[in-house]
Amino acid sequence: MKTVHVNLGARSYDILIGSGILESAGDFFKKYKVGRRIFVVSNPNVSQLYGRSLMEALSRQEFEVTEILIPDGEKFKNLQTVENIYTYLIAQRADRFSTLVALGGGVTGDVVGFVAATFLRGIPYVQIPTTLVSQVDSSVGGKTGVNHHLGKNMLGAFYQPHLVYIDIDTLSSLPPREFQSGLYEVVKYGLIYDPDFFHYCEDHLEEIGKRVPEVLENIISRCCEIKAEITALDERESDLRRILNYGHTFGHALEAATGFHGLTHGEAVAYGMLASGRLSVSKDLLIASVERRIARCIRRIGELPSIDHIPAEKVLEAMERDKKRQEGRVVFVLLKNIGKTVIEANVEADLTAIWEAVRSESGE
Amino acid sequence: MKTVHVNLGARSYDILIGSGILESAGDFFKKYKVGRRIFVVSNPNVSQLYGRSLMEALSRQEFEVTEILIPDGEKFKNLQTVENIYTYLIAQRADRFSTLVALGGGVTGDVVGFVAATFLRGIPYVQIPTTLVSQVDSSVGGKTGVNHHLGKNMLGAFYQPHLVYIDIDTLSSLPPREFQSGLYEVVKYGLIYDPDFFHYCEDHLEEIGKRVPEVLENIISRCCEIKAEITALDERESDLRRILNYGHTFGHALEAATGFHGLTHGEAVAYGMLASGRLSVSKDLLIASVERRIARCIRRIGELPSIDHIPAEKVLEAMERDKKRQEGRVVFVLLKNIGKTVIEANVEADLTAIWEAVRSESGE
Repeated sequence: MKTVHVNLGARSYDILIGSGILESAGDFFKKYKVGRRIFVVSNPNVSQLYGRSLMEALSRQEFEVTEILIPDGEKFKNLQTVENIYTYLIAQRADRFSTLVALGGGVTGDVVGFVAATFLRGIPYVQIPTTLVSQVDSSVGGKTGVNHHLGKNMLGAFYQPHLVYIDIDTLSSLPPREFQSGLYEVVKYGLIYDPDFFHYCEDHLEEIGKRVPEVLENIISRCCEIKAEITALDERESDLRRILNYGHTFGHALEAATGFHGLTHGEAVAYGMLASGRLSVSKDLLIASVERRIARCIRRIGELPSIDHIPAEKVLEAMERDKKRQEGRVVFVLLKNIGKTVIEANVEADLTAIWEAVRSESGE
Repeated sequence: MKTVHVNLGARSYDILIGSGILESAGDFFKKYKVGRRIFVVSNPNVSQLYGRSLMEALSRQEFEVTEILIPDGEKFKNLQTVENIYTYLIAQRADRFSTLVALGGGVTGDVVGFVAATFLRGIPYVQIPTTLVSQVDSSVGGKTGVNHHLGKNMLGAFYQPHLVYIDIDTLSSLPPREFQSGLYEVVKYGLIYDPDFFHYCEDHLEEIGKRVPEVLENIISRCCEIKAEITALDERESDLRRILNYGHTFGHALEAATGFHGLTHGEAVAYGMLASGRLSVSKDLLIASVERRIARCIRRIGELPSIDHIPAEKVLEAMERDKKRQEGRVVFVLLKNIGKTVIEANVEADLTAIWEAVRSESGE
């Protein structure tokens, strides 16, 4: 088992990463002084897989546990779901000393974090992420929030968890495509921050694909370490933390252009990283051979769904709309080398050509 | 004009207090580096009185100002109002650099603070409180929030403003009863923290009643100073900040027992302070003559509405319900002397007798 400490002064917390640790949740929650009354929020699928064993593990250590089920899926990541949880908590007389537990993927974690941030002006919560992308990304860093019908992730707060508790065995039930989508985010950490880690991922792609526990523990804990370091230096995303958005300027635009259908977030980011690599080369920041090496690694993770049917102008239009939301600037994270980023606003470049090049490869 | 600094590290801010300063808002907003795009949230009444002159003052300094009106009254302090503001902000393409301004009383300030805390994971906001109680209490300290239909102030966040801007001339339009309700909170600061300030209030009750500007500036800035000091020591209400709840254990119970009708919050707190004084005497903490002196001062502020029709048991029942929400404890703030508090949980005392004594005086 590995422990990663997130150093945020009074808001510091630990991330525990291990195989089969769900059964020991009661012991660790006790050690980490989690309050006696616990509300586990989950969706029906995840609850069926892991809810009972978690609840039993907690009850064995005399926690008083209640389960709250929310519907599965991004479209329920909204204020209505948040309000339903509020109502339940009030009806159950939850108080400032009650603790919420998010058992599930990113949607569950984001919703529960937001409820925790805003119920009684803030109560503690624990993240138990069960998908790769939530384990390496959304459960760490304190970004919480829900969608508004006019825009994704518009409502939220920065609010740090009390503990993040990652049982990598929960990944065994993850469908291959979801798993691969998480791997793109894993590779991203190497690209933006740690060349050695990128090389480790390159060298172990097969074991990673086979979900070998020791390798998973290594990559997940390293991703958490990197995110923890970046978050500690820039909790509220002023500057440094932006590098975590590598591939996201193109990626978000692609998601918007597809109406958020047909691609997972990770896949959109993968395309975004491919485009950002090419853009970095075209700006003479990155050597072409390094860009090709990165692209090879990304492509080896799995087959990306074709984006052949999405014209470049739709993607660029979506980017233009984003720009209006950011005081007229489009901010790109670019690479100078593996592990070395540079942030540039309003880059002058033939984005259409770059996008067409990425797109033409997608049908290969 | 007076400036009070609230020292909260990276979240520090100033409170400016002066007479007729609304017209100079543009200059001060510039000095305090408020973002160029401003959304002023207000209700129709306050907007009619002060909205135009504020908007003009800001426009003169080239701020781009938009007004958002919300309905007046505690019953609109809810998630629906919050959501309406979100929708408007998104439709207007507000971004992370946009600033919200709360122009109005406590309801406006609490709602706007909550929107600011949760829109795009937090945007800046400025408080321009226009009632006495919001000037001395709710606009300072970063408590934001709205009601749930099952409970008051259940939803919210601790989120500090960028600036608090108090024009005491706005008090000239405040109805006498609202003004008096604020004065109970003013006196409370003396009782819990500063005997000299209590004596100043005692000595100047007439000038205060006549709303003499210099005296108002003195008392409001001293209240803000005290609240700032307490908040700086305990931002998230763990312990010290509880003394601000002097009179509130009884007060809340009284409000609940009346179904929040017939008494203002300040009046309920006034009764709560009268009861807390008596309780302090009965626990041999406070000398009876001091208690009588305090009660005289509270009674001199104005006539309190009779509570003769509210039986003691209803108040005590409401207190009992509160207790269940606080892990089985009723916490009282008690006085050892003027300016000296002691916090006690589960006080053994004949609360019925104490309440009956306060109640019997209320019909006098």
